Amino acid sequence: MNYKMITNIVGWVMKIEAGFMLLPAIVSLIYKEHNTWIFAICAVFFFSLGMFMTAKKPENTSFYAKEGFVSVGLGWIVLCTVGAVPFVASREIPHPVDAIFEIVSGFTTTGASILPNVEELSKSMLFWRSLSHWLGGMGVLVFFLALIPMAGGQNIHLIRAESTGPDVGKFVPKVRETAMLLYGIYFALSVLQFLFLIAGKMPVFDALCDVFGTAGTGGFGIKADSLAGYSTYIQMVTAVFMLIFGMNFGFFYLIISKNIKGAFAMEEIRWYLGIFAFSALIIALSLICRGADIFISIRDSVFQVSSIMTSTGYATADFDKWPEVARFLLCFIMFTGACTGSTGGGIKVSRFIIWFKQIGKQLSLLVHPRRVKILKMDGKKIEHDTIRIVNGYFAIYFIVFTLSLFLVLLLDNKDLVTTFSAISATFNNIGPGLGGVGPTQNFAHFSDASKLIMTFDMLAGRLEIFPLIILFAPRTWKKNG
Amino acid sequence: MNYKMITNIVGWVMKIEAGFMLLPAIVSLIYKEHNTWIFAICAVFFFSLGMFMTAKKPENTSFYAKEGFVSVGLGWIVLCTVGAVPFVASREIPHPVDAIFEIVSGFTTTGASILPNVEELSKSMLFWRSLSHWLGGMGVLVFFLALIPMAGGQNIHLIRAESTGPDVGKFVPKVRETAMLLYGIYFALSVLQFLFLIAGKMPVFDALCDVFGTAGTGGFGIKADSLAGYSTYIQMVTAVFMLIFGMNFGFFYLIISKNIKGAFAMEEIRWYLGIFAFSALIIALSLICRGADIFISIRDSVFQVSSIMTSTGYATADFDKWPEVARFLLCFIMFTGACTGSTGGGIKVSRFIIWFKQIGKQLSLLVHPRRVKILKMDGKKIEHDTIRIVNGYFAIYFIVFTLSLFLVLLLDNKDLVTTFSAISATFNNIGPGLGGVGPTQNFAHFSDASKLIMTFDMLAGRLEIFPLIILFAPRTWKKNG
Repeated sequence: MNYKMITNIVGWVMKIEAGFMLLPAIVSLIYKEHNTWIFAICAVFFFSLGMFMTAKKPENTSFYAKEGFVSVGLGWIVLCTVGAVPFVASREIPHPVDAIFEIVSGFTTTGASILPNVEELSKSMLFWRSLSHWLGGMGVLVFFLALIPMAGGQNIHLIRAESTGPDVGKFVPKVRETAMLLYGIYFALSVLQFLFLIAGKMPVFDALCDVFGTAGTGGFGIKADSLAGYSTYIQMVTAVFMLIFGMNFGFFYLIISKNIKGAFAMEEIRWYLGIFAFSALIIALSLICRGADIFISIRDSVFQVSSIMTSTGYATADFDKWPEVARFLLCFIMFTGACTGSTGGGIKVSRFIIWFKQIGKQLSLLVHPRRVKILKMDGKKIEHDTIRIVNGYFAIYFIVFTLSLFLVLLLDNKDLVTTFSAISATFNNIGPGLGGVGPTQNFAHFSDASKLIMTFDMLAGRLEIFPLIILFAPRTWKKNG
Repeated sequence: MNYKMITNIVGWVMKIEAGFMLLPAIVSLIYKEHNTWIFAICAVFFFSLGMFMTAKKPENTSFYAKEGFVSVGLGWIVLCTVGAVPFVASREIPHPVDAIFEIVSGFTTTGASILPNVEELSKSMLFWRSLSHWLGGMGVLVFFLALIPMAGGQNIHLIRAESTGPDVGKFVPKVRETAMLLYGIYFALSVLQFLFLIAGKMPVFDALCDVFGTAGTGGFGIKADSLAGYSTYIQMVTAVFMLIFGMNFGFFYLIISKNIKGAFAMEEIRWYLGIFAFSALIIALSLICRGADIFISIRDSVFQVSSIMTSTGYATADFDKWPEVARFLLCFIMFTGACTGSTGGGIKVSRFIIWFKQIGKQLSLLVHPRRVKILKMDGKKIEHDTIRIVNGYFAIYFIVFTLSLFLVLLLDNKDLVTTFSAISATFNNIGPGLGGVGPTQNFAHFSDASKLIMTFDMLAGRLEIFPLIILFAPRTWKKNG
């Protein structure tokens, strides 16, 4: 294990985070709130600590998959712990478990909140909370790679460990350029959405927070009714951009490389849009059948499907009161989630595609045991290793999910729908669920132990489980492990 | 496709079923009911039809996996259709969809009922209903193979397609002897349970129906309160035998081969008993914590865990009113189910073992991409094909489950817990579920369309999906397919 490299990386995470803390300090200054000093002191303190950790450049820059996972796991734990400090220091979220839950929910772009009334928070804290979505969405280590030229070509392991989906590749041969491209697209799309929102006369502060939550597919609202109070135009701009940020960033890379045909030929994009259209249609119909207005039904359905499928979690309607088939579909798309290499959560569409492609092969082999069939995606062979990792992921996902569900039921004895959807909403980084964690509810009523389990689930969901398991596995830390 | 062989096999299924119809005819005679002629006429008619179908011995006896699946799928559809006739003819279950649901629930050893009050049924119909559990449990085609010496050594495909679990082997080299051994053990254990029940002063008719439901892990009761009204002794005998019939029959083969050590070393048996003990313990504790009597808590918990895990579905308590963690655990063991090569349903413990064993390999490969690790079960290497089939099974299981859930929600708009557990209880061949299909409820309130979907699920669950899919796949019926 290359400890020096890992210390260096974690130090950089701290420095970057400290730098971003200056933004809410400015917000506090503008709105004449009393949090300016808290953010400023935190920024200086953690920047100094980070400087100390990165002071000595590691001579040995060799870096393997294991180091990648450990750096990402550790980096994220530090990121969240540091991020919770302003909440506790300002006494706005005094209880440390709640503060950790809230900021982990932010960085992992979950958007689940323990705040009974979000409007009681100061503007600067609301800003910090939403900003954590934006930072966590594309990943703080990818940001670091885009920023700093690092020696050694093995840094792709960092991107792989922090990005989502079963098979993350490089757009361009150089890691740093890939990271810069990712953040470039991310930043450009964020600016674009901001301009659209401003055009709809959304206040600048609201628009910024909306963009942070959309781009990171996070979903923290700054109003008690989430986005229900804004105009239809603002809601639809947000819906479209949620859908965009849930797309595989490879799609945008193909678009800017002027390969439009190739972009829309991507199987994952087609399935993603197909599931979106199908779900939105069925849910809109179920609402219309119940006698709701056609225009409102379509608007609410499109918004909510886009919000849940991309794991954002903004709400414009109390979907917990929708027909059962709509509630089920929303639950279902919590699991399918968004695309590989997007900022969205869930299991990811491409994993389902690969999983399902096995079935055809499986059935064909039952009837014709000797016929050879090669699984392909986007015309390329799906490597045996990828299939194996996807199957392993489903199995381990299932274990973590079931274990969390079991423990929270045991600890809190809440009804099955509430508990199931609470785990589903945190593990898939959605935000709101059904029943007791529906869009008009929050997570405050869970016990501290359950909140910590869900905090772990949010991190595990964002980092796709493996980095945390490898970080905590004793074997990782053995000398010759 | 060898049509003549398939016709021959389906004809035999009819003849065997017709033969067994004489038993309820005798019951009707003893209890002076008016169903004697109905069963007798059905028996004669279907036996003649079967004779006609088997009149010409097929010259070509070549038989492959495809024919195995098709014969089993078709054989079971015929078995169920024929079995529903007495219900409709006697007007005791006049609606054909209900009659089909009830008898499919019987043969597939599900035990879900559309009868609001089971005690209104005549004794002979109750007997036929319970007998279908016994016949369906070990499989009617396995029975046929034990009975009739067939030419050609490929009949193992029939056992494979009708038996449960990912990897069914032969105990002895000859197929017929394997089938005879299976039915020998099955019959002997049934007789043993009958003797134990009679020793507890259970009426002969009740004891017979109890044995049929236990041996097939079916769960049709003949009383409105299932087994709640019987003595603790009778309940515990039933609990122990449910657990026994949920075991891998390879276990009993090792026992009668005097390889006791080998029998208890079977990984699946250890996991099966482990999950049973863990669930029973937690559920008993959750009941005790709620203030229930310790003895009653343990008794009810042991009975219910044994009943649900083996997919029998007998009830001695209204477990729908138990604490949430208990309800969840019961839901969970619906899916794990019983062992491979048992009469029980569910996904099967061995599939979970294989699925989980991938995880260790998966994690180890993430850290050490070049280390070779071989997965083993009971000391033997798990073939790559077996792993592939298990993964495929999980994927296809998931699709059928989700699609059924979606359709029934769309059709009937019942609450999520009721619908989810109704699909789970039918697809896993359990019987009762939670909420609107809890142990004190029944399936009568679903629409005909939903009942037919659940009928399909019961068949798909019992035959483990593949035979039905292959039967209905157009490609199967193509000339050179």
